[in-house]
Amino acid sequence: MFKSQKKLTLKFDIFFDELKEGQQFSKVFAWERMPAIRKRNIHELSKNHGFPLVFVPIEKLKSLTNLPVQDGIVALKTSLSFQSLQNVIDLCYENAQTPLFLMLNGVTDVRNIGAIARTAYGLGVHGLILNLKNAAALNDDAIETSAGYLQNLQLIRSHDILKTAEELKLNGIHLVAAHHRAQQTIFELKGNIPLCLILGDEHAGVGVALLKIVDQQIKIQMQNNVESFNVSVACGIFLYEIIKQRLQL
Amino acid sequence: MFKSQKKLTLKFDIFFDELKEGQQFSKVFAWERMPAIRKRNIHELSKNHGFPLVFVPIEKLKSLTNLPVQDGIVALKTSLSFQSLQNVIDLCYENAQTPLFLMLNGVTDVRNIGAIARTAYGLGVHGLILNLKNAAALNDDAIETSAGYLQNLQLIRSHDILKTAEELKLNGIHLVAAHHRAQQTIFELKGNIPLCLILGDEHAGVGVALLKIVDQQIKIQMQNNVESFNVSVACGIFLYEIIKQRLQL
Repeated sequence: MFKSQKKLTLKFDIFFDELKEGQQFSKVFAWERMPAIRKRNIHELSKNHGFPLVFVPIEKLKSLTNLPVQDGIVALKTSLSFQSLQNVIDLCYENAQTPLFLMLNGVTDVRNIGAIARTAYGLGVHGLILNLKNAAALNDDAIETSAGYLQNLQLIRSHDILKTAEELKLNGIHLVAAHHRAQQTIFELKGNIPLCLILGDEHAGVGVALLKIVDQQIKIQMQNNVESFNVSVACGIFLYEIIKQRLQL
Repeated sequence: MFKSQKKLTLKFDIFFDELKEGQQFSKVFAWERMPAIRKRNIHELSKNHGFPLVFVPIEKLKSLTNLPVQDGIVALKTSLSFQSLQNVIDLCYENAQTPLFLMLNGVTDVRNIGAIARTAYGLGVHGLILNLKNAAALNDDAIETSAGYLQNLQLIRSHDILKTAEELKLNGIHLVAAHHRAQQTIFELKGNIPLCLILGDEHAGVGVALLKIVDQQIKIQMQNNVESFNVSVACGIFLYEIIKQRLQL
């Protein structure tokens, strides 16, 4: 049974409303014998909203909560909430701050996401943009690794990373992607302008379509034929360089 | 049964010789019914040389190898070897390089050690100094997380971290400890001199006795009341700052 502090949603209509309002679910358990239409429906929602879904026997559902399971779901809420990108950008400009965003493109390792959130919050990043796959990885492990800082960061969930990138550009925000085959190095990064740093999955890197529309690609200069660093280490180095420039040191 | 590429030692006398020569063992299985004196002896060695030791039934020992188990041990070698600190320092000075060492004081998480090794190798650290507890954590997981770079790094195993610190100082190497309550920040770090950066355990930090003899304590300036970063992230930021200064950028 889940610890009491975790919040569950047990009614379908409430679950749908909460999803619409941007509530994040770390996992949804659904009755394996629910009507086929509802099954397809909830499966579709899982894909679109990026929550992990498992179909289980009624006994499993009942074991998860003391409350009566009537609608055949036990949906486990996370304590995270998401903001609209435009709102966060507007807030930066209203506060006369130079926007600094961080976008994760495919990073799903919870320990890395946690370490990145902690670094981003500590170095004053205004918003962390996650695609659906990343957002789905924001479970309790990630929150714990981030030492809770995921809950303090402004999180933005992107349903379409290319559209989000275009929205950033329309707001005057320079897109800088980290890429191990970039021509330019971190030493050519200008930190004092409105920026969004984009980091990719450790294996595949930033997606090709996204790379095509960024303003700059940079890498960390490495020795000894090392090609790349752990993504949270690289994130720390890039953000440090930006912050140092902003402090004009 | 262990994969064939892993090397085993099955004879006591060879095992003792190899230990003396600095061979590292990732795990040692010993027969639970070996004579009590030998048991104490091997237990003592495990403490002094920092290898994990388990006492198991004879069936378990036999299941680990195709070869005959005669002496009641199956000792699993790692592919790592250790250097003498003085040799590595001498090599730096002979090659007209400004020494840059990294010392880990109590970091035992294998993923962190792996990420740190990868960063250290990529940023050209001359030697990674580990205390026995750290060295014991250098199992195959750590090697894998480091993408193999642990095997390329010059590794130094310290039996007494304070003595090793004194040895560094006698060689003109400046000791800089990262500490979240330090008065000075990373911006006051001078990277162009012979240096050893000291990083502590994520919870306890660098040990008090060691902190007393370092030349400088520094921290990364953080916002939002964040106290510390993941140790591998912090390591990347500190080393980047040092390397950037050395490149005079």
